[in-house]
Amino acid sequence: MIISVIGGEVCAPDALTAAETVGRELALRGTTVLCGGRGGVMEAACRGARSAGGHTIGILPGRNALESPPNKWVEFPLYTGLGFARNTMVVLSGEAVIAVSGAYGTLSEIAFALIHNVPIVGIDTWDFAYEGHESERIIRESDPVKAAALAVSLAEGRRTPAETRDV
Amino acid sequence: MIISVIGGEVCAPDALTAAETVGRELALRGTTVLCGGRGGVMEAACRGARSAGGHTIGILPGRNALESPPNKWVEFPLYTGLGFARNTMVVLSGEAVIAVSGAYGTLSEIAFALIHNVPIVGIDTWDFAYEGHESERIIRESDPVKAAALAVSLAEGRRTPAETRDV
Amino acid sequence: MIISVIGGEVCAPDALTAAETVGRELALRGTTVLCGGRGGVMEAACRGARSAGGHTIGILPGRNALESPPNKWVEFPLYTGLGFARNTMVVLSGEAVIAVSGAYGTLSEIAFALIHNVPIVGIDTWDFAYEGHESERIIRESDPVKAAALAVSLAEGRRTPAETRDV
Amino acid sequence: MIISVIGGEVCAPDALTAAETVGRELALRGTTVLCGGRGGVMEAACRGARSAGGHTIGILPGRNALESPPNKWVEFPLYTGLGFARNTMVVLSGEAVIAVSGAYGTLSEIAFALIHNVPIVGIDTWDFAYEGHESERIIRESDPVKAAALAVSLAEGRRTPAETRDV
Repeated sequence: MIISVIGGEVCAPDALTAAETVGRELALRGTTVLCGGRGGVMEAACRGARSAGGHTIGILPGRNALESPPNKWVEFPLYTGLGFARNTMVVLSGEAVIAVSGAYGTLSEIAFALIHNVPIVGIDTWDFAYEGHESERIIRESDPVKAAALAVSLAEGRRTPAETRDV
Repeated sequence: MIISVIGGEVCAPDALTAAETVGRELALRGTTVLCGGRGGVMEAACRGARSAGGHTIGILPGRNALESPPNKWVEFPLYTGLGFARNTMVVLSGEAVIAVSGAYGTLSEIAFALIHNVPIVGIDTWDFAYEGHESERIIRESDPVKAAALAVSLAEGRRTPAETRDV
Repeated sequence: MIISVIGGEVCAPDALTAAETVGRELALRGTTVLCGGRGGVMEAACRGARSAGGHTIGILPGRNALESPPNKWVEFPLYTGLGFARNTMVVLSGEAVIAVSGAYGTLSEIAFALIHNVPIVGIDTWDFAYEGHESERIIRESDPVKAAALAVSLAEGRRTPAETRDV
Repeated sequence: MIISVIGGEVCAPDALTAAETVGRELALRGTTVLCGGRGGVMEAACRGARSAGGHTIGILPGRNALESPPNKWVEFPLYTGLGFARNTMVVLSGEAVIAVSGAYGTLSEIAFALIHNVPIVGIDTWDFAYEGHESERIIRESDPVKAAALAVSLAEGRRTPAETRDV
């Protein structure tokens, strides 16, 4: 099972701690962590996952390691050359998404998760609203251990035949 | 000059009226309207632009007209086969963006406009916030005539050499 | 009707002459010329089309005019930020394709045209072969006036209902 | 180290045998096999790699497993929603590429490998030519064991600082 962790390169220390815990907890549950491959939240999540023996995949915006150096905890760096258009893929490749804080790139990924019905758990992240399209479909969970467990459970839920047909 | 108009396929009647006025006013100012090529706000903006003799470009998600029928006011339908990843291109190809209402696709486009520093004018659209990354960089203007004029003026402002260097 | 003209930035003088004639002849037949927006064959085709009063669209690889300056005969420059992944779109957006000479980028576009069943006319361009997948589906025509007429006719042929269903 | 194996879904039995051997040999050399995730050559390469304990990554064209079922030897299925535009990424993410037979999709990937200077080893695959842009930059090697060893060696060669700067 692959779960995507999204969040910004620049973030508060609390977000880094949360992301590292999320990565570790996902790995302990046998889940691969997929992310945008860069620093900040992405790096912390990868570090947590690798420290617990898990696999990590980074979907980079650039064409090679010079354009987009992956963080050093990315086990499988994949280069897209698509810039921020790669954000759609970060979301589509996860069976669930965990958002930790985040800037505008994360906001675009949350939007894509909501478009594609990928379950999304949010730890201290974006709030948004426009007439009947609120951010309430983000399941808020401030405890990173619980957030990881919840994401795994939501991803497992998608695997039932009835759910899968809607994907 | 090309200006992108973004907004949802499903929207309130007020949004359609606003989008049509925006399209017409952009065309009257000699501007080409670019959009996602589908219905709702996109169709209304194209209809307004064509009615005033302007050009319209639709950047479709599918590979052909069967997968993504363009609205009938799209003069130049372009097929990407990229799904929602084409949203980055809708934003990058405009010298300014006008958002009219909108659902999650529009939210992703607003996020991309903020990432890429494309000026954005909002008519009754998304509000969002997360620590220091507010939606306040969207310039709100409820009057569609003024919104069109403002977008043209912001696009012209980007063309000065000093600004362009930062793009 | 939109027809794509593909070919390299660096090419022999003969190819430039042919591309300019192709552009002009397409425009005289009321067709919009779409291309990758850069120099060489693309520029010559755009120049020919504009000189005959036609429309021209350039699908650029970069995110803006600094990364990907369009040639000066591109009427509608569209920025993708996708690099060479934009080549799929150059092919999908044309109702037929004319290849003039070309390097590896053109080879990739010819491959995409064959995948997506877009009719393709070749003027002194790639030859390739591998067991039953020859390049013979490229219709060779060395005269650029005839090549343009042929492409328009092939594009019109695709518009019949029966054909369209297969697209 | 990641090496991409490209080739068609439909191919001769010899190609399947070669691809499986390539996958196995890459895995025995500690290399991860990346491919388009589908059947035929891709499936055979993944099966070979997994049988030898290696990792396998599949970059799928669709948005989910219903649109693009991965072959059952793909350990990490990644969904792009980009259609054939994902071919650029298959090539960019490998430190070298091995082409085994192949149809037009493979031809497009070979073209991208040549554009991006990714070393490419060919086992009974495309031949093409156009004035000074021959397919001779494909290193031909009919023995799949030697082809795998050669690709690993070429990938290692790219990692020297001088080479990397050019990538």
